[in-house]
Amino acid sequence: MLSTYSKEDILGLPLHYRRNLINCLSGFKSACLMGTIDREKRTNLALVSSVIHIGANPALMGVLMRPHVVERHSIENVAATGHFTLNHITEEIYRQGHQSSARYPKEQSEFDMVGLTPAFGDIHPAPYVAESPIKIGLQIKERIKIQTNATQMFVGEIVELILPEQAIGQDGFLDLQQTGSLTVSGLDSYHTTERLTRLSYAKPNQTLQDLPLKE
Amino acid sequence: MLSTYSKEDILGLPLHYRRNLINCLSGFKSACLMGTIDREKRTNLALVSSVIHIGANPALMGVLMRPHVVERHSIENVAATGHFTLNHITEEIYRQGHQSSARYPKEQSEFDMVGLTPAFGDIHPAPYVAESPIKIGLQIKERIKIQTNATQMFVGEIVELILPEQAIGQDGFLDLQQTGSLTVSGLDSYHTTERLTRLSYAKPNQTLQDLPLKE
Repeated sequence: MLSTYSKEDILGLPLHYRRNLINCLSGFKSACLMGTIDREKRTNLALVSSVIHIGANPALMGVLMRPHVVERHSIENVAATGHFTLNHITEEIYRQGHQSSARYPKEQSEFDMVGLTPAFGDIHPAPYVAESPIKIGLQIKERIKIQTNATQMFVGEIVELILPEQAIGQDGFLDLQQTGSLTVSGLDSYHTTERLTRLSYAKPNQTLQDLPLKE
Repeated sequence: MLSTYSKEDILGLPLHYRRNLINCLSGFKSACLMGTIDREKRTNLALVSSVIHIGANPALMGVLMRPHVVERHSIENVAATGHFTLNHITEEIYRQGHQSSARYPKEQSEFDMVGLTPAFGDIHPAPYVAESPIKIGLQIKERIKIQTNATQMFVGEIVELILPEQAIGQDGFLDLQQTGSLTVSGLDSYHTTERLTRLSYAKPNQTLQDLPLKE
């Protein structure tokens, strides 16, 4: 049975119900942990699901930040050091990752509280999650305010990338199923994935081909 | 074997290889079709994967738009009519959805060219994809320029929502696995999902619980 909701219907839903429903509408999402550090070298970890690809040249990614307690520490740390990391979540660490969204005081690092290991590269100060197969180090380029609800989009340029080489195909495609990266829906539902296929570049009046996974 | 890439390493990769690799880094993505219409009532359909949740009160979603040919028609139509739709892609329609990313001239509607059916509601003029189980109608609220690479983020408020009622749980959680919504990785890899679990709201010093799917 199909239900239709108007804007007024949506605004009339109970708060918790509406939060769950609306958070599901954007579809399956990236499941990442964002690592930051403050000037006193205290590390911080935040669960983020609103991560998007912004461009490949230069290599840019965006993260939507909410003005909540948990993300406020991350926002302050990026302002202080100019860097953050994004680390893919796998089946082995998703419970720790989810637990990192609890509201720990600034004095307690989420790394310690949930049992994940900070790891550092040579290029920037922000901590990676050692247990994550895909580690991305970014330098902040823009903080863009969304006027309608006082959230902000962090735009970062990738300055370091640590990856399992065997998961990269000859055409540069990175197999996120092989690395075990999860996807999240809504606020709390974690999923593995099963590939249907890769499809060829679409052109008018040309039939799509299934691409081989490893060329 | 782990490989580390610096910013210079990334910029030195061949163009096609870099596009594939960097497009995969943001993790699993939403797979949606964006429906628009121009003042002459010509419909347009565009494949979008950079869709994010922005807020639940008001209900806001964001879509990153690139200044490419395909997305330019959508951008022009939203400017003309103020509305667009987002429609989840399923296994039944992902090939048509992918084909809609081909560069058709403005005179040809992607709906006709790929074999999908436009459907209209009463609240706004933008076309839905009849075959999609989750149809979201949005009014444009902000167009935010990303200076670093001349893309823009469209922020829309949900003004209409058409959903299968049986996929919504008692707490508002919408089961995207039940609706058959797919996820995409990189530019061209389509995936179904398999739920691990839903996890309870995280609090310090409290063990996470697995939530029942239907409460």
